[in-house]
Amino acid sequence: MTDKRGNSRHQDDKQLFIIYYFEKMKTFQHVQDIGPLDKALAEAKEIKNDRFKYQHLGKNKTLMMIFFNNSLRTRLSTQKAAMNLGMNVIVLDVNAGAWKLETERGVIMNGDKSEHLLEAIPVMGCYCDIIGVRSFAGLTDREYDYAETVFNQFIKYSGKPVFAMETATVHPLQAFADLITIEEYRKQQQKKAKVVLTWAPHCRALPQAVPNSFAQWMNAAPDIDLVITHPKDYELDPFFVGNAQVEYNQKKAFEDADFIYAKNWSCPGVTNPDDYGKILSTDMDWTVDTEHMSWTNNAKFMHCLPVRRGLIVTDDVIESPDSIVIPEAANREISCSVVLKRMLEALNN
Amino acid sequence: MTDKRGNSRHQDDKQLFIIYYFEKMKTFQHVQDIGPLDKALAEAKEIKNDRFKYQHLGKNKTLMMIFFNNSLRTRLSTQKAAMNLGMNVIVLDVNAGAWKLETERGVIMNGDKSEHLLEAIPVMGCYCDIIGVRSFAGLTDREYDYAETVFNQFIKYSGKPVFAMETATVHPLQAFADLITIEEYRKQQQKKAKVVLTWAPHCRALPQAVPNSFAQWMNAAPDIDLVITHPKDYELDPFFVGNAQVEYNQKKAFEDADFIYAKNWSCPGVTNPDDYGKILSTDMDWTVDTEHMSWTNNAKFMHCLPVRRGLIVTDDVIESPDSIVIPEAANREISCSVVLKRMLEALNN
Amino acid sequence: MTDKRGNSRHQDDKQLFIIYYFEKMKTFQHVQDIGPLDKALAEAKEIKNDRFKYQHLGKNKTLMMIFFNNSLRTRLSTQKAAMNLGMNVIVLDVNAGAWKLETERGVIMNGDKSEHLLEAIPVMGCYCDIIGVRSFAGLTDREYDYAETVFNQFIKYSGKPVFAMETATVHPLQAFADLITIEEYRKQQQKKAKVVLTWAPHCRALPQAVPNSFAQWMNAAPDIDLVITHPKDYELDPFFVGNAQVEYNQKKAFEDADFIYAKNWSCPGVTNPDDYGKILSTDMDWTVDTEHMSWTNNAKFMHCLPVRRGLIVTDDVIESPDSIVIPEAANREISCSVVLKRMLEALNN
Repeated sequence: MTDKRGNSRHQDDKQLFIIYYFEKMKTFQHVQDIGPLDKALAEAKEIKNDRFKYQHLGKNKTLMMIFFNNSLRTRLSTQKAAMNLGMNVIVLDVNAGAWKLETERGVIMNGDKSEHLLEAIPVMGCYCDIIGVRSFAGLTDREYDYAETVFNQFIKYSGKPVFAMETATVHPLQAFADLITIEEYRKQQQKKAKVVLTWAPHCRALPQAVPNSFAQWMNAAPDIDLVITHPKDYELDPFFVGNAQVEYNQKKAFEDADFIYAKNWSCPGVTNPDDYGKILSTDMDWTVDTEHMSWTNNAKFMHCLPVRRGLIVTDDVIESPDSIVIPEAANREISCSVVLKRMLEALNN
Repeated sequence: MTDKRGNSRHQDDKQLFIIYYFEKMKTFQHVQDIGPLDKALAEAKEIKNDRFKYQHLGKNKTLMMIFFNNSLRTRLSTQKAAMNLGMNVIVLDVNAGAWKLETERGVIMNGDKSEHLLEAIPVMGCYCDIIGVRSFAGLTDREYDYAETVFNQFIKYSGKPVFAMETATVHPLQAFADLITIEEYRKQQQKKAKVVLTWAPHCRALPQAVPNSFAQWMNAAPDIDLVITHPKDYELDPFFVGNAQVEYNQKKAFEDADFIYAKNWSCPGVTNPDDYGKILSTDMDWTVDTEHMSWTNNAKFMHCLPVRRGLIVTDDVIESPDSIVIPEAANREISCSVVLKRMLEALNN
Repeated sequence: MTDKRGNSRHQDDKQLFIIYYFEKMKTFQHVQDIGPLDKALAEAKEIKNDRFKYQHLGKNKTLMMIFFNNSLRTRLSTQKAAMNLGMNVIVLDVNAGAWKLETERGVIMNGDKSEHLLEAIPVMGCYCDIIGVRSFAGLTDREYDYAETVFNQFIKYSGKPVFAMETATVHPLQAFADLITIEEYRKQQQKKAKVVLTWAPHCRALPQAVPNSFAQWMNAAPDIDLVITHPKDYELDPFFVGNAQVEYNQKKAFEDADFIYAKNWSCPGVTNPDDYGKILSTDMDWTVDTEHMSWTNNAKFMHCLPVRRGLIVTDDVIESPDSIVIPEAANREISCSVVLKRMLEALNN
């Protein structure tokens, strides 16, 4: 979990930016898929000023949104973004109104799953132009989750451009929206903004997708210093931590912070793979309350939502004028619009 | 439950018509929100003749339909009306495919509800231009239901125009469609039409939203005499009864009736708050059969649907030529079109 | 189950082609509803080359898709086809988000069904221009299923054109897509293609809709010899078998086959009505594996999907280059486009 390990990976990623950007955008999963962030942010601003500017791009193009898990913001904001771009939208809830899907090969399918993903994915690909996939981590098999098994099957077998609507390990539409929001709310006079990603307690084991992507995007963003704070043994995967500073003392981490980004995650299993997906701490001292916020540089409070009040954050803090969770959610429409615009441009070229 | 009490409230409402009508239409909940009824009825007729006339109004506008409860007619007719007006539509079933929502403040959210309504509502408001809400009465807490707690939170926190797709206490899209239907089927030679709202038995406790709104709209409508008939202790809230006549003898109420509007409701708790939401009678003598209809002036039979045959009404009556339940349902598309048109005009001004 | 019986029915059907074709297309259920197959196939080819050619036809027209049962391909491909034609689409899952529906008359509806189909169907018809219905066989009452009770109620009471999205006994959108696929993959030098419909084992009792329609369409198609093979007592209804050859020896049936169409079905109850809907055999010798395929004339493998691997077909066969299950599924968009185009033309005339 040293800077060096993360840094080297991160540097490699930076090398890839140029290459990816000149290729057609076929997948949206990692920060480098969007190309240079200053250009992406400029495009976000342009689209926020005129959401229907690129409506011609989506004519006669169909987005298929496939949900293996529940969704509120992603479901609504992605539909809105697609309709802004003139696309048709088909929403498929795999566990409601469709069949259960088998994911393993070599199985005699005499149980409750009546279709194999190896047929279902190319079939879904037949009826659309772009696919969005939501498929959470199972949190029992680290290797399976971190191999992005389900999402990669869509890339491999659908024959269509695929983007992540939160997968087992990443949630890039959220991280891009977070970045857009930070750009809007950062103090103009400061050259560098200090952004703190803090773990907070929760009653259920949650995936690492949001903190993973948040770290990845903050590391890649211009003029941002990222500090990650969490109890011992909650270390995120070095691939995502990159060259961010890790600080186990939450109070120290919060000092001089311009943005506090709270999030729970279950154990990523970096130090001990057997702990993967487990709740190792429910320490309520990590809950972000007004005292926590007083340690900062009048920081803005952020969270991807949904948020459990009383566990992650107190009512006071989330309802305070410094809470920007709603503008942050509103920017989900914008981040998704930029991604779909890029994918449509690639399709039309 | 005297005329006087209701009448005074009703007179106050009439004073409000002009005020509301010149304001932008931001909420659709009570009859006065639509302004003068003769103008609204004329607009309904115009739209029924050319459903796509105002299609330009909805361009790049998104309706979000939020269902906390089941729906057939409202779900379908509202989508149809919005599409007639050129709108995009997003349908959200809160209990299927989204999170369960916490509604109380100051709670440590460590149960099954993973999001607070205070975040969810403004977020939903971010991704649309107009919001429709279906949220039934719980029928256990009269004060909570009659305060329209959920619906009012949408008005307060969504930042968008909100209309009722049946709330705890009102169903104005239904009542407006009922009025349109009565105008179409009333005998032209009669100056006044006698409309009878009759309670009928049912196996489950039902809300008062439909009879409440029906009474409110009939009271406000030109040239209609409303009589309400039900067993003792089923008195509707005086705010809705207005200056309507209440007659406990069903046969007497039916005499000379031009329209019979059957509906079950559970005890509104007016005489005894402890009885709120209870079934006080299952008296099958109140079921509308051919004998009941013979007491009337060849009345048309109406019901908002869904209807339980054998309890509310017999097969004979609902299938008779005098049953107008299907044209009544068809007019749901029209009433909703007028409401959405008004809201779009307010948005575009 | 003789040729003669089937043949005579089949000949009658042929006589009907001309009559139906010149009428407006109000129902799509049987092969004759689409008129001459060569013309329908030519139209399919035209639409596949330019899916948006007839987009003007669907302007301000609404398709309502009503699902009483689960669906993946039909749900997605039908939406896509309708959107290609410029239609608005409303999807209704009857068992999720709507009421449960009573189907019998003369019932006191005091159970869990809160609406009668006799109200619900005409209401659904109010809000749309064309209706698609999915309603599977119950497999307990042969007479009820083969009378197409639910589907025929939609024809009778909705007042709108209705098409089958798999009903109790037919799945014509699938069979039409199958025919389009066979036309695309048949060897050009052969005058006649040998097509074999083979039963295969399955762990659950399945309807006969797919094999019924497949047989009906293959019988009506030009230059196709249909052979049906299955264990004794799995005979399909003579109305659908028509003049096809029935061969109980699977190996003999497969000889010289150009296309193998695998499908399970439960007992159709032709020989013994008491066996209707039962599983009479789970004989895994009927599972299509590479040895089975070696008996053929390098046949293509087809299945309507979803398919249970290991029961109907082995992984090897379905993943082989001769498996055309995905192009077959892709043609669902095309077959549905032709049907909706025909229905829209009838509406617009």
